[in-house]
Amino acid sequence: MLGAEDPESFFATAPPLRDADADAVRTKLQEFIARNSIISAGGVDRRPIVCVTSGGTTVPLEQRCIRYIDNFSSGHRGAASTEYILKAGYAVIFLHRRGSCQPYCRFLPDDSFLKFLDVNEESKVQVAESHQTTVKESIWHYCKAMEGGSLLKLQFTTIFEYLQLLRMVATSVSTVGQRGMFYLAAAVSDFYVPWDSMAKHKIQSAGGPLEMRLSQVPKMLSVLRDQWAPLAFCVSFKLETNSDILVQKANMALNKYKMNIVVANLLATYKDQVIIVTNGARNTVRTRNSDDDLEEQIIKLLAQKHSKYIC
Amino acid sequence: MLGAEDPESFFATAPPLRDADADAVRTKLQEFIARNSIISAGGVDRRPIVCVTSGGTTVPLEQRCIRYIDNFSSGHRGAASTEYILKAGYAVIFLHRRGSCQPYCRFLPDDSFLKFLDVNEESKVQVAESHQTTVKESIWHYCKAMEGGSLLKLQFTTIFEYLQLLRMVATSVSTVGQRGMFYLAAAVSDFYVPWDSMAKHKIQSAGGPLEMRLSQVPKMLSVLRDQWAPLAFCVSFKLETNSDILVQKANMALNKYKMNIVVANLLATYKDQVIIVTNGARNTVRTRNSDDDLEEQIIKLLAQKHSKYIC
Repeated sequence: MLGAEDPESFFATAPPLRDADADAVRTKLQEFIARNSIISAGGVDRRPIVCVTSGGTTVPLEQRCIRYIDNFSSGHRGAASTEYILKAGYAVIFLHRRGSCQPYCRFLPDDSFLKFLDVNEESKVQVAESHQTTVKESIWHYCKAMEGGSLLKLQFTTIFEYLQLLRMVATSVSTVGQRGMFYLAAAVSDFYVPWDSMAKHKIQSAGGPLEMRLSQVPKMLSVLRDQWAPLAFCVSFKLETNSDILVQKANMALNKYKMNIVVANLLATYKDQVIIVTNGARNTVRTRNSDDDLEEQIIKLLAQKHSKYIC
Repeated sequence: MLGAEDPESFFATAPPLRDADADAVRTKLQEFIARNSIISAGGVDRRPIVCVTSGGTTVPLEQRCIRYIDNFSSGHRGAASTEYILKAGYAVIFLHRRGSCQPYCRFLPDDSFLKFLDVNEESKVQVAESHQTTVKESIWHYCKAMEGGSLLKLQFTTIFEYLQLLRMVATSVSTVGQRGMFYLAAAVSDFYVPWDSMAKHKIQSAGGPLEMRLSQVPKMLSVLRDQWAPLAFCVSFKLETNSDILVQKANMALNKYKMNIVVANLLATYKDQVIIVTNGARNTVRTRNSDDDLEEQIIKLLAQKHSKYIC
């Protein structure tokens, strides 16, 4: 029997995506790649294509799922990065956690949404005056991306859905060779409960303390690099709470999984600072002021490196 | 050493609320109870006061929290119920999970919020025509509740925050005796990791499979009934995946924890049907059509029973 850390074993035992969903995704991906690989008269006009993964995956603890393990990832990094990657001329497949942060929706208030709206003199509900400009810009950019066919949004919730979707996306993106990029900002579960070991019904608390044994999720970065999309430009992320091990873990990902770039950050400072780690080099990027988006600098750097990689 | 299932032990070892937060909550509660207990000329004008709990609690797995156990509760039941309870003339303390469903915000689309907005002829961003009426009504009701001082919103995320806040709220609500109600719709974790046993840093996946031992969260319903608010009218919720044990578990809660009412529902059908269980009686409530809110019927029944209880 293959160990639970084996990718093949993971996929063989994972609850599959529903056929209708899998087919729909496959079709959307094919159309998206085709639309962004148009050969126009006089030459080839082909956008670089990136798969941005964003938000956290969940680990169900019961088959009729009530409880699950989640992580704190809001998806802000992935959503903000998507805005800048689109601006840099990429086509983006935004593979994100259902309900997490969306590109061009960052103006949404955290708490009471109703404080964001006003009733005007014509008795119509509109966005409050102070937010009008920001929201109008966001709508403009969002419509441009959706109608221009340069943004495809796919959703996941569980670790099972995420990895099956990632495999499908990678298979599509591999058809564009070096023009493809993976920007793996999603917070992927390291541990999970294999479907067959999972309790079928809600675990009863009257049964006393709960013992759980979680298997390791197979490291899919190697499979992505070696099998699914061998020519793509791969950027992975590393988040740690302990600064002593951060760069060491980043270098390990570079070498072991043959990533092109690792973006390393600490839980305590990830909003203000990241370290961009490449073979032999480290580049610390910091916000310049309180309105600055770290993602703007990150994407600028990455787009340059990808451009060199393609040529 | 007291067992981990002991309420006293739970509170003694839980990471405390920050002093500033606890003080602010205490003050808001005092003011809220006072505002809703005005003695006017010619008689006493006192609204019944209910604490509605809503959404799921989380169980942190690391002290510098990256991973936690969560549950599927959206908070929709609690938020919808709050709208009807306010309509029934109650003052509501809405103790809810940060980010979960809010009263009067149920019109918000699940996915892309931007599809909900339009740019009108004056180049102003407004709510799309098809949603104008619903949103205007929601804003009206929301403002009425907030400005009238009949809705107080308090937030929690972890099981530690939730139980400490519930205790504070219960202590305040107990001052209004039988006029107080608890509508405990929140999905409270049954298992947790005591703070002192918790990993300090992010658990490393290179360490092999993960063994977790979770303690039982003490049953606080008895403490609520016996110590914190002995005269209040208590409504608790029971959600199961297995219909064979649902009513049995509901009756157990009634008898063991001396609840006044238990609202019992199944994961498969909770949106369309509940069983309202009281001593010696069961009342199945179902949605009458696709636009019907189950909560409207539930609250009507509960308000009648609470009214009898007070007299």
